[in-house]
Amino acid sequence: MTENEQDIETRPGPRNGSGQDPEHSPAPAEEGVENEESYSLDRRTVAAILFSVDAGNREQLVELLEPLHAADIADVLEQVNAYDRRRLIDLYGKEFDGEILSELDESIREEVISLLTPDVLKDAVREMDSDDVVDLVEYLEEPQQEAILDALEDSDRVAVQQALTFPEESAGRLMQREVVAVPELWTVGQAIDFMRERDDLPDQFYHVILVDPRMKPIGHVTLGRLMASPRRLALSEITEPSFRTIPAMQDEGDVAYAFNQYHLISAPVVDEDDRLVGVITIDDAMIVLDEEHEEDILRLAGVGEGSLNDRFTETIKQRLPWLAVNLGTAILASMVIAMFEGTISRFVALAVLMPIVASMGGNAGTQSLTVAVRAIATRDLTGSNVWRVIRREALVGLTNGAAFAVVMGIIGLIWFGDWRLGAVIAAAMVINMLVAGLAGTMVPVVLDRLKVDPALASGTFVTTVTDVVGFFAFLGLAGLVLI
Amino acid sequence: MTENEQDIETRPGPRNGSGQDPEHSPAPAEEGVENEESYSLDRRTVAAILFSVDAGNREQLVELLEPLHAADIADVLEQVNAYDRRRLIDLYGKEFDGEILSELDESIREEVISLLTPDVLKDAVREMDSDDVVDLVEYLEEPQQEAILDALEDSDRVAVQQALTFPEESAGRLMQREVVAVPELWTVGQAIDFMRERDDLPDQFYHVILVDPRMKPIGHVTLGRLMASPRRLALSEITEPSFRTIPAMQDEGDVAYAFNQYHLISAPVVDEDDRLVGVITIDDAMIVLDEEHEEDILRLAGVGEGSLNDRFTETIKQRLPWLAVNLGTAILASMVIAMFEGTISRFVALAVLMPIVASMGGNAGTQSLTVAVRAIATRDLTGSNVWRVIRREALVGLTNGAAFAVVMGIIGLIWFGDWRLGAVIAAAMVINMLVAGLAGTMVPVVLDRLKVDPALASGTFVTTVTDVVGFFAFLGLAGLVLI
Repeated sequence: MTENEQDIETRPGPRNGSGQDPEHSPAPAEEGVENEESYSLDRRTVAAILFSVDAGNREQLVELLEPLHAADIADVLEQVNAYDRRRLIDLYGKEFDGEILSELDESIREEVISLLTPDVLKDAVREMDSDDVVDLVEYLEEPQQEAILDALEDSDRVAVQQALTFPEESAGRLMQREVVAVPELWTVGQAIDFMRERDDLPDQFYHVILVDPRMKPIGHVTLGRLMASPRRLALSEITEPSFRTIPAMQDEGDVAYAFNQYHLISAPVVDEDDRLVGVITIDDAMIVLDEEHEEDILRLAGVGEGSLNDRFTETIKQRLPWLAVNLGTAILASMVIAMFEGTISRFVALAVLMPIVASMGGNAGTQSLTVAVRAIATRDLTGSNVWRVIRREALVGLTNGAAFAVVMGIIGLIWFGDWRLGAVIAAAMVINMLVAGLAGTMVPVVLDRLKVDPALASGTFVTTVTDVVGFFAFLGLAGLVLI
Repeated sequence: MTENEQDIETRPGPRNGSGQDPEHSPAPAEEGVENEESYSLDRRTVAAILFSVDAGNREQLVELLEPLHAADIADVLEQVNAYDRRRLIDLYGKEFDGEILSELDESIREEVISLLTPDVLKDAVREMDSDDVVDLVEYLEEPQQEAILDALEDSDRVAVQQALTFPEESAGRLMQREVVAVPELWTVGQAIDFMRERDDLPDQFYHVILVDPRMKPIGHVTLGRLMASPRRLALSEITEPSFRTIPAMQDEGDVAYAFNQYHLISAPVVDEDDRLVGVITIDDAMIVLDEEHEEDILRLAGVGEGSLNDRFTETIKQRLPWLAVNLGTAILASMVIAMFEGTISRFVALAVLMPIVASMGGNAGTQSLTVAVRAIATRDLTGSNVWRVIRREALVGLTNGAAFAVVMGIIGLIWFGDWRLGAVIAAAMVINMLVAGLAGTMVPVVLDRLKVDPALASGTFVTTVTDVVGFFAFLGLAGLVLI
């Protein structure tokens, strides 16, 4: 934004005159100077876009946005401020594509939708696939949801409304309803002829699903294998070994796990009676996997669902509760310290050293808990090996504790010239890091058993334990040994 | 393991007599009692497997492992201890499938390879696709790598060795070399006939790539679209709009980003002269995306590349350096406290309250830095909006700081009956949380500019800043106000 005045002629623009459809040519960003940033929007393009918005030059804006993928246009809208966003959308007008809405971060989706004129919104959503519309409307407020549903054609509206009857974050919401299914007894030739005659094949599909007479999927064949096989071969001879069906009510996180674990490309979705109701493809699963990871990382850091695009008040609302919880635990730790005020007033060195014990315990605990939270998420930490893992983490904590006990014992001795102080901090270090290893593993395991997301709450519990134990062990031992 | 004696008859076994190829039926775990755990190996299956190993019952072991996906068998090997692992592999013998090696966590791959007899290893790797062999051998020690390369047939060995000439973690290593490419001027009918005549089509492919006479990819057509189109149509009429090529030297993290951002299913890989050399499919990109996330989470927590399966000494080696860095920063913070020993000895309440200021700053800083690290990874925090984001985070820190300043001011007043103490902690809180917001955003941005992974090093820097500033502001203000 600070570079609006820059020479915008140097920006890489769409390469015209190459005889190629510009839509099929790579986005300009791909030719950026820095190779590693090859897929991000480069700064110059964003600056040029904002320049055209400042100048109110619609033609130039359209020319700049035309070669960009909808995901990149969404990124532009996310990166500029609310004032520029409004002006950009007004200027862009009816060129606004429905796919941009799908790509937008949820935090500014509502704002952008409210900026679109009813006509533009209608054209935008009518272009979209029904599963994308579901993804778009599911978290919108009632009035906006209805505005979009009203804009749809009748058949699409019914499809979207049916999808919305499935629970949030379920396979039923994730799936597309358009499937290519054939009877299990067909041959390769029959399947190929059937597909070539149908004129409503889905845009993206990778398998032909074999179903029994009651529409229960019993296998699937990749299109590549179909192409490569003789016409007379039975389809059942060339089904994929990795075939799996997904219950419509299954949580989307489990769906993503299955795709990742079993390298699925697409999988049929079935209702309670095992009947085929839709199909989920790997690109949808990849988006969910990405979202789940994002959620884990943010939750581990005590940031609810934060993103850079959230409104200021939204951000405060997300972060304040976690800080409040942290304040509570910090006060708890302070109360432990307060128990030993007398000891501290006689040996001020204790006040100097005590944060070290707590900090090392907190760090060791965070290491253990992060490994445990990840292992739970990837199903590597299960009932079969939980005790072995806990023993192992305790041993790791004890070993690291012993190593740092020696270091800190010597530092304590040298710094304050008192071997007893060195011995106290060494002992407290061993105790606290052992506890850190134990708590770092057991807290997430217990939370998981209690059906609480371990990523969400483990950190607070573990650092509370290591703070309290750290201060108590150090100051308590000091009270016994030094006085 | 503790449940070996359990009634193993209740385990869900392969369903025989259903007339279905067991390979095509879902794994038994999918029928587990708990729906949410539907894709993890259930505890009973693992117990039954270990029971058969204990009993030395090869037939039962093979029967139990037969219906499992290679990824699940790899999980079993990861979950049991080294002793059981050795016995299981010895007993399983030549049934051992190459795919299991691909699925194994790197931490125990070498161990498992060393347990296989040369014959079993040879059979196992000969079944694998060449890109899977590359993935398998790239991080092995020299002797094991050679043992596997020697086991391969000549043509496969050359392909693997060529792939290994590309840099680690590059698109060139990730790609498969088998491609389906046709001249750009061909029609739908020509492409279909060509494919049906070829007898070496890759197992998995989703697009037909159009190339110009110099083998430069200029577009691709999905197999579904090919099926649905009339034979006479030119292929160039039905190419996908989202087409992108990937340079062979590109970092695999950027490849995964492109797949996720642009919803690619497969993309051709090109050499420096833009010639087609291979293709990357979304399932490979999804694995990389998953690995990158794992890396980010673990690095943010100061755990190098840890997993539960690492050997004990390996784990100590990974975690010790981070704890040592943390010890250094904790000592730095202690030295700040030591500057104020005189003040603390006169007001012990300061020792009680000071960890609260540091802890709140540390937490607020972690929140900001996590959001910033994620935004850098997803390319949402760029040169275009960096100053706005920094301003915003500073404002968030200031606002949260003000809120908790009021709370802590009151608590300080009530707890210690001294309004000046309340005022000091309130002021220190505002200062430290403002600094936390600033440092939490600027540190990762600066590290990223310096080409250091912000996930790796930000946490240490930020908490050092908040500890030092927190103690200094609180104790320094106390020294000015209270004395």
